[in-house]
Amino acid sequence: MYNGAIEAGGTKFVCAIGTPSGEIVDKVTLPTTGPEETLQKVVDFFAAYQINRLGVGSFGPIDLNKDSNTYGTILNTPKQLWKGYDLLGALQRELSVPVYLDTDVNAAALGEYRWGAAQGARSVLYITVGTGIGAGFVKDGRTFIGRQHPEMGHIKVEQHPEDRFTASCPYHGNCLEGLASGTAIHDRYGRAGTSLPENDPVWEMTAYYLAQAIVNYSLVLAPEQIILGGGVMKQERLYELIRNKVSTAMNGYMDLPVLEEYITAPALLDEQGIKGALALIPADTDKYQKVPDFL
Amino acid sequence: MYNGAIEAGGTKFVCAIGTPSGEIVDKVTLPTTGPEETLQKVVDFFAAYQINRLGVGSFGPIDLNKDSNTYGTILNTPKQLWKGYDLLGALQRELSVPVYLDTDVNAAALGEYRWGAAQGARSVLYITVGTGIGAGFVKDGRTFIGRQHPEMGHIKVEQHPEDRFTASCPYHGNCLEGLASGTAIHDRYGRAGTSLPENDPVWEMTAYYLAQAIVNYSLVLAPEQIILGGGVMKQERLYELIRNKVSTAMNGYMDLPVLEEYITAPALLDEQGIKGALALIPADTDKYQKVPDFL
Repeated sequence: MYNGAIEAGGTKFVCAIGTPSGEIVDKVTLPTTGPEETLQKVVDFFAAYQINRLGVGSFGPIDLNKDSNTYGTILNTPKQLWKGYDLLGALQRELSVPVYLDTDVNAAALGEYRWGAAQGARSVLYITVGTGIGAGFVKDGRTFIGRQHPEMGHIKVEQHPEDRFTASCPYHGNCLEGLASGTAIHDRYGRAGTSLPENDPVWEMTAYYLAQAIVNYSLVLAPEQIILGGGVMKQERLYELIRNKVSTAMNGYMDLPVLEEYITAPALLDEQGIKGALALIPADTDKYQKVPDFL
Repeated sequence: MYNGAIEAGGTKFVCAIGTPSGEIVDKVTLPTTGPEETLQKVVDFFAAYQINRLGVGSFGPIDLNKDSNTYGTILNTPKQLWKGYDLLGALQRELSVPVYLDTDVNAAALGEYRWGAAQGARSVLYITVGTGIGAGFVKDGRTFIGRQHPEMGHIKVEQHPEDRFTASCPYHGNCLEGLASGTAIHDRYGRAGTSLPENDPVWEMTAYYLAQAIVNYSLVLAPEQIILGGGVMKQERLYELIRNKVSTAMNGYMDLPVLEEYITAPALLDEQGIKGALALIPADTDKYQKVPDFL
């Protein structure tokens, strides 16, 4: 018996069929268009399988307050067609299975925690650095949601002394996403980061901002491990730049684990989101997996 | 039958006898001297009572990793006499009761959550702004500890454009504690904040720093409520200054609760620390309170 998983993103929906142990047996990537049209394609994909449960890691902001009337609804997003769309309700109605919903970044954190680079850690912060910046946190097997889901990508950072760029986030002056996202890198030069030379000062600046954020996250959450994923982190030299700057900025105040183990790449090879969605389905509610509590 | 509580601070130890419902029936305040001498006075106080259990909210840094060989030991502190002192071991040995240990700020957060200003909230961040700055976080009745206890008072903030002060924290340039603590206020002028006029620009600056930190904490932890306590917050006009600056800095990005309910003063009248220490003792392990699970 299989479970279903959806990584619901602003540009694409990844849908998969998988096992409770995280193996993916079928997978499809669908472009995100309008909600009804996208959902129809999702339903068509799952129609070929009988799934027990569905895990969904979604873009946001999305209402994750289970006591709310609008639980599972996409909130105030620039994607006008999706604003106010009851994603959870539509999935439950169309697929008639229990749905386990969380943010895309919480799902990715859980995927890496369960089956990826953070196996064995008690807590992990997963940061995605792509078009935007977001982060999800898992501690003792549970994803972290507060009054609402966190918006960690928007914490304030101090502008690099040599950076003349006006941050790209329309809400705040210099927030992390506004200065270190792929969008910010692109907007600095009018071309993609992938086309910039290795020694372009933008990498130093991007590492500077991410390191500042990581120091603050470390002081607030004290995670055992931090995983950096997303398109921008394909520039692998960023990892070492970031580690060095974290070390300098922390200045020995808080004891950190060995930095090569503390700040790492993901291990799930771009499947952390979809495998994480699968991981959102709690093993103990799967009636086909359930064993009596003999212990 | 009573429980015991200790608020172990760098300048004073508060010891109390209380009930599981948070009433304090006896209390003493002892100056913090060397560890052996201080502990002897603590033991003398508790000798007059038979206590079941003991809750301890301690200054730090302190090892709170239960799997560690040095669990309960004071770590690298400027208080040389206390460095490496096994506070938990000494208390267990001398008082022969189970000891529930956490940071002073986590205890205060729990006290306000259980019996103070955050009753009814699902999560609360308690920030103390005194000689130093620290914060404790409680969610769903449990205090938050990661790989180690957080050090939220040391997050980086951006210097106020009119502030010429060189931050007082020896580790970081401009961290929150280095710019907004009572020590920082004192060091700006060479005299205590209490002697400064109400319209001194330092209040505006202090609120500016605290608001920046609160925006970042809100984006990372999304607490339902934030309580600001400690000596500096006796300057009551700071609350409104901080609320206004949080509103400006967040700029509508994250929906916050009504600010007068989101950012509040403590309700336990300087007893949040000691009552919080009492609250660290879980009700369900008190054999004299335990009732069968009929529900």
